[in-house]
Amino acid sequence: MRYEEFTIEGRNAVIEAYRAGRPIDKLFLLDGCQDGPVMTIKREAKKQDTPVKYVTKERLDQLSETGKHQGVIAYAAAYEYAEVEDILEAARQKGEAPFLFLLDNIEDPHNLGAIIRTANLAGAHGVIIPKNRAAGLTAVVARTSAGALNFTPVARVTNMAKTIESLKKEGIWFVCADMGGTRMYDLNLKGPVGLVIGNEGEGVGRLVKEKCDMIASIPMKGDIDSLNASVAAGVLAYEIVRQRLEG
Amino acid sequence: MRYEEFTIEGRNAVIEAYRAGRPIDKLFLLDGCQDGPVMTIKREAKKQDTPVKYVTKERLDQLSETGKHQGVIAYAAAYEYAEVEDILEAARQKGEAPFLFLLDNIEDPHNLGAIIRTANLAGAHGVIIPKNRAAGLTAVVARTSAGALNFTPVARVTNMAKTIESLKKEGIWFVCADMGGTRMYDLNLKGPVGLVIGNEGEGVGRLVKEKCDMIASIPMKGDIDSLNASVAAGVLAYEIVRQRLEG
Repeated sequence: MRYEEFTIEGRNAVIEAYRAGRPIDKLFLLDGCQDGPVMTIKREAKKQDTPVKYVTKERLDQLSETGKHQGVIAYAAAYEYAEVEDILEAARQKGEAPFLFLLDNIEDPHNLGAIIRTANLAGAHGVIIPKNRAAGLTAVVARTSAGALNFTPVARVTNMAKTIESLKKEGIWFVCADMGGTRMYDLNLKGPVGLVIGNEGEGVGRLVKEKCDMIASIPMKGDIDSLNASVAAGVLAYEIVRQRLEG
Repeated sequence: MRYEEFTIEGRNAVIEAYRAGRPIDKLFLLDGCQDGPVMTIKREAKKQDTPVKYVTKERLDQLSETGKHQGVIAYAAAYEYAEVEDILEAARQKGEAPFLFLLDNIEDPHNLGAIIRTANLAGAHGVIIPKNRAAGLTAVVARTSAGALNFTPVARVTNMAKTIESLKKEGIWFVCADMGGTRMYDLNLKGPVGLVIGNEGEGVGRLVKEKCDMIASIPMKGDIDSLNASVAAGVLAYEIVRQRLEG
């Protein structure tokens, strides 16, 4: 297990963190702020015995990592990275075929946050990211995940290709998103599946791609090359959802 | 028609702008930079007679609006807003049923850029945005659109509800994304269609929603409320693409 320090910023993100039972070590609130969401946060803080400090906007701006604190910054007990095994166990406990996201070097924290948010809503059991180079679980990621980071486990691995190799032994099939693959509608994505999403600029790395069982392409009608990485992840994830709902 | 001044930043965005035949008024390049993409840009600049200025990184940082210039900033003849009629004409010329995106107050320029990118790749004929409050076509939007802004017309309207009203007379059906609607797979989205995407926090406004013929919901399995706006737009747009491909 590994821990990282970070702050949770913005009203919804802090409310979601409280609702998910995440321990908050300290709360900074804009002095004089009394609207509904802030009152909700104050109630939660009281319930959880969180020390609250009322500060000026200037102080909040100083503390803020995202620049979008909306008058609320919480110092959270850091997000905990899960183990890959925890993710499989989550699927087992729900009695569902595993549905994993594997992110091969997503670098933009906004994309990482949006993808974790999508993973949560699409019913995926967890997200696997690489240890090096890629974005980690920063405050920006927590905020753009809109609270999903409280619910969806994220594991970090040293070698994505080896992780895929060993997960194949668990009966999971891997599909990566890339141009020149099979149209996603024509693939069978109903069973235990790992969805592999590549880097924003370079796509899925060669070593990882070689380990994948299927290459899925999103039909493209336009004049440019590719969708935004988090949009592509959403479109593919929901093709998996559609096929699973069909039964 | 209306014009706005702006810069195009980053290698791919500038190359795409040249390829799309967009007039560049002036080009700023990092002095001493000689790699492949920069050489391509230099060739294009010579072909188009663009005045080139070689400057320091500090100067580029100063000029940059996005903070991500990658050694290249172009001053472009501003993006031109299209008229709604131009969008319909584009559909007519392609002999296709109109497919429009209507954005009811998207505020985040990253979301706006990503949605224009999606509109292009999903084969939509244009994007309609409101004049007030919402994000306009800034440098950040141009950059996150990954060149799509050169190809996909964007029109601005004063009153989105009235625009929908008058487009209905053209035989276009409107579907908006919202919770509590019909599962998107169960709607018929094959004909002439306008996809209405709401604001990041508040969703689709009441007046606009009342004008829509259908409310589409994306199935949600998770613990949080909603997808990122650009991801939701992508998932819905590709459900339309899937149904249209089915014929």
